[in-house]
Amino acid sequence: MKHISINEERLLERLQELGRTGCEDGKRSRVALSDADKQGRDVVTQWMNDAGLDVRVDRIGNLFGLYGELSPEGPDPVFIGSHIDSVIDAGMYDGCYGVLSALEVVQTLKEAGCAPKRPLVVAAFTNEEGVRYAPDMMGSLVYAGGFGIDEALAVIGTDGSVLGEELERIGYAGPEEPGFLKPHAYVELHVEQGPVLDAEGIQIGAVENLQGISWQRVTIGGVANHAGTTPMRMRKDAGRAAAEVIRFVGDRADAPGSTSVATVGCIEFEPNAINVIPSRAVFTVDLRNPDDAKMYADEEALAGFLEELSRERGVTISTERLVRFEPVAFDQGIVAKIEAIAKEHGLSVRRMTSGAGHDAQMMARICPTAMIFVPSKDGISHNPAEFTPAPDLIAGARVLLDLIHQLADEE
Amino acid sequence: MKHISINEERLLERLQELGRTGCEDGKRSRVALSDADKQGRDVVTQWMNDAGLDVRVDRIGNLFGLYGELSPEGPDPVFIGSHIDSVIDAGMYDGCYGVLSALEVVQTLKEAGCAPKRPLVVAAFTNEEGVRYAPDMMGSLVYAGGFGIDEALAVIGTDGSVLGEELERIGYAGPEEPGFLKPHAYVELHVEQGPVLDAEGIQIGAVENLQGISWQRVTIGGVANHAGTTPMRMRKDAGRAAAEVIRFVGDRADAPGSTSVATVGCIEFEPNAINVIPSRAVFTVDLRNPDDAKMYADEEALAGFLEELSRERGVTISTERLVRFEPVAFDQGIVAKIEAIAKEHGLSVRRMTSGAGHDAQMMARICPTAMIFVPSKDGISHNPAEFTPAPDLIAGARVLLDLIHQLADEE
Repeated sequence: MKHISINEERLLERLQELGRTGCEDGKRSRVALSDADKQGRDVVTQWMNDAGLDVRVDRIGNLFGLYGELSPEGPDPVFIGSHIDSVIDAGMYDGCYGVLSALEVVQTLKEAGCAPKRPLVVAAFTNEEGVRYAPDMMGSLVYAGGFGIDEALAVIGTDGSVLGEELERIGYAGPEEPGFLKPHAYVELHVEQGPVLDAEGIQIGAVENLQGISWQRVTIGGVANHAGTTPMRMRKDAGRAAAEVIRFVGDRADAPGSTSVATVGCIEFEPNAINVIPSRAVFTVDLRNPDDAKMYADEEALAGFLEELSRERGVTISTERLVRFEPVAFDQGIVAKIEAIAKEHGLSVRRMTSGAGHDAQMMARICPTAMIFVPSKDGISHNPAEFTPAPDLIAGARVLLDLIHQLADEE
Repeated sequence: MKHISINEERLLERLQELGRTGCEDGKRSRVALSDADKQGRDVVTQWMNDAGLDVRVDRIGNLFGLYGELSPEGPDPVFIGSHIDSVIDAGMYDGCYGVLSALEVVQTLKEAGCAPKRPLVVAAFTNEEGVRYAPDMMGSLVYAGGFGIDEALAVIGTDGSVLGEELERIGYAGPEEPGFLKPHAYVELHVEQGPVLDAEGIQIGAVENLQGISWQRVTIGGVANHAGTTPMRMRKDAGRAAAEVIRFVGDRADAPGSTSVATVGCIEFEPNAINVIPSRAVFTVDLRNPDDAKMYADEEALAGFLEELSRERGVTISTERLVRFEPVAFDQGIVAKIEAIAKEHGLSVRRMTSGAGHDAQMMARICPTAMIFVPSKDGISHNPAEFTPAPDLIAGARVLLDLIHQLADEE
């Protein structure tokens, strides 16, 4: 491989510029299909055009920058990308780093006169965050055929807006059918959004799988009674029962050998009065595991615990399934390449699991896929304090460059 | 003692009529010094006048109906009473039963031509519930000298109103100084507001003490992090720590030999998102015990547990004292009389602790005091479903009649 290198300054400057785009009162909230999202899309489209890429938009608003000869008979393109929509009051790296690194890599190859065997596609998928429209990772899901385009366009947002109408309004309802190009492979470079690489001082994560996610809402029904006059033995305290569940799921995830993480993030008591025994506790249980059988075992164990608790405490317990995504295994061949390239660059590297959802999990349905992670300081994400030092950003993009070079030259 | 008996129908009818007074849209909310409270006061004042009592109002709005010769040289009067203000969407028995039974007993004695040695005073104390103005049991507290009258009149309500102005507005800012009559004794008849008598099938509770109350707000500070990407070992989960506290206080109150009750009634997580580890958990701890040393030991044990938890979980924990009332011991002589009278009437009786606060706890500061409880169906109170069957109401009033007869004839 000819020695070529990304334009580090250009990448970092674009990250800063996209980071500033659409900010209001110093807050970065480029929520999908908002005016701020349009501004971000306009900037990225301009850069794709500047780089001489062939810009295409599909019906769900996914934005693609094509490089190389695309023909039905020719080889399938390698996709590289992520998303540029954000949560409310977001950081500047989540998603944007992947899209801009993809652009940087393709632009670098193009400027260096490299003509890889396979075309390259820089992808910015619509509505990865899912803040305004559910589900999240929608653009890649629709692209991978997992969600119908007409159904997606009809989705109603949290603000009552219709997704398709907002897409038209901001000018990103494109003509291409989602899935119009069949990827040979998909690679996504992303900040970890977790503390592992930062805590361990490792520069590159070769992401080999993505945790399955199980979300449930648990509702416990007890009896509201006076906190002073009701003897302990006569209580049906929904709050105490909830505390037992929080303890159970946490302790199970803590157990030696467990690969789960478990979180109770939301809770509400009724009537929520200082001197009234809670008649109702509603809370969420977020279970994740890279191994589906283990996640299933965790769910079963929870169900069993709830049944027993209901009997013991005389409370009613019901659960509602909110989300269940199976774990995703990435392509071992690509993961091995990432490891090897990182080592060639003298970078420390470890295989790891993605705890967060990414467009890569949807693209993995239709092509060999993997992800590269770089550290997130203190694991902070979805927050203006999200930060990855420039040397780590550059290291990640360099690994991506070599990886794409290799994948694009594959038969 | 001459055989006399209360007018059962009159008592039950007055309870119904006062229960209807001030209702709006079928809801009973005679919150202190509201228009509805004024309507309730007007009705009770009228009945006191009808009974030929000498109606007096003090500066905090406590309403008194006097029977018998009152003079500085004469014997001190026996006070009998409770309150007629209510919580929002209240039942009809809490407080009203005590005031109307007191009136019934005095009216019965008067109509029977009984002239007891001591004068009798029917008392309806201002703002027992404390819904609009803090603290609760305010009228009796001011009467007993525990809270200055001028300070009380200046209290600002939850609606921004000034207590003294509202008292003037509804016409119950009376001329008497609180404490203007020194009680020989105070007796309060009340529905239990708890499940003990109902569950045990006992008709009369001879209330010998009143639990101390300790209210604290506990705030746990952790670190908000992604529920998927943050390994269990790297978490500082404020919600899990809160669950451990809920468990601790509940288990300690459950322990054999414990006389405490413990309740966590309010809780809030921040940011309260399904996929974010709670950075903050704020909750209340309500501890009650009839024995102050034991309540103190519970508070100490909790403080120790919080300290250990803070170290183990790497979370910050702070507590804020909201309320602390020491337990109140009632007069053993009066309690013994209640037991004896109940047995004479062929009623089942047990000594018990009051879990709720009552005006009696304030009056106990200045005179021998006790309470009589009758059952509350399923322990329900502060709720329109609050209910005590008529035979139980009558039984309680009969015991009160005999008790007052005895107390009023004491030297």
